[in-house]
Amino acid sequence: MFTLHYAPASCALASHLALEHAGAPYVAERVDFKAQQQRSEAFLAINPKGRVPVLATPQGVLTETPALLHFVAQSFPQSGLAPLDDPFALARLNAFNSYLCSTVHVAHAHRFRGARWADDAQAIESMRAKVASNMAECFTLIEHGLDGPWVLGERFSSGDFYLFTVSRWLEGDGVDVNRFPKVADHLRRVHELPAVAAVLPLYQA
Amino acid sequence: MFTLHYAPASCALASHLALEHAGAPYVAERVDFKAQQQRSEAFLAINPKGRVPVLATPQGVLTETPALLHFVAQSFPQSGLAPLDDPFALARLNAFNSYLCSTVHVAHAHRFRGARWADDAQAIESMRAKVASNMAECFTLIEHGLDGPWVLGERFSSGDFYLFTVSRWLEGDGVDVNRFPKVADHLRRVHELPAVAAVLPLYQA
Repeated sequence: MFTLHYAPASCALASHLALEHAGAPYVAERVDFKAQQQRSEAFLAINPKGRVPVLATPQGVLTETPALLHFVAQSFPQSGLAPLDDPFALARLNAFNSYLCSTVHVAHAHRFRGARWADDAQAIESMRAKVASNMAECFTLIEHGLDGPWVLGERFSSGDFYLFTVSRWLEGDGVDVNRFPKVADHLRRVHELPAVAAVLPLYQA
Repeated sequence: MFTLHYAPASCALASHLALEHAGAPYVAERVDFKAQQQRSEAFLAINPKGRVPVLATPQGVLTETPALLHFVAQSFPQSGLAPLDDPFALARLNAFNSYLCSTVHVAHAHRFRGARWADDAQAIESMRAKVASNMAECFTLIEHGLDGPWVLGERFSSGDFYLFTVSRWLEGDGVDVNRFPKVADHLRRVHELPAVAAVLPLYQA
């Protein structure tokens, strides 16, 4: 049995959807960011980074979305969440997930988490002002690379759950998803999957 | 035959070391960041992100350090660069590499690449001012998690080349690596590996 520690509106959604889709045995444990629970002694004992997602497994604790997505795919190969035996296709998937994690999520994070990277209010405001254009730039690149219906083309993968998760942030970031028709289609397509119906209600902030 | 596009002082070093260590057939192609070659039409045709590392393979182009590290490990399993058949251990490695990519590299990037996230000079200066403390915070966490001699404990992996790459940035970021004795030991240990002797001279800026 796994325990996924998640927070509403967070990127934990991607791993959560992967677990649900794979039929993995798990329970979901909500971390209350509004009450700063991620900074509590109890939570920092689980994850010293003070972030979600965290997947507690019988072998120990795992963190970082790209790692969790691969772990779920490899632990439940029948889920088809990753082309495990095709090094090139897997690398394409890993590159996509890594880009979402290290560039797109980071671009988004400058909206609410600017205090991570600067101390003065004006700098934090300047970062916030650039979020929409940075997210639009990232999604221009993603749109260009999407051959659809899925991130890897004909093959569904964990990258679809991750893209869905990050695409949902666009509106709040001040970017109209309809500027990116293939991304908008993809968002609707993933939204129809059974795992989304089961998990998404937990993510309303 | 692979072609690795790299730039001196960049994070491409990690993938470069992995290729060299694995005995992969590759050539290294230098991208001149000082001449803004990463923004040239020719390079953007290879990688629209305008960044390194890029690995051109017979099947197509791959990007993103964590993806390249896994690709090299899986393509050359005898290299031992990843515990491919142990999902939990592999997830620990992937989580470590993902943290370096999405948190530590990003913390470092606010020193020279602040213009990615804000337009005004004062904000960019504020970001720069926080790099040392952010990098120290990241490495406090890394130091705490290092049981040595290697990132995964007794087992060498790609994470060692990646940590080596990022640890080398500390001095320029204004952080004395000796504040983190296990990281400093690790830096020296990786420095003695044959792959480093072969590759590091190319990375002098």
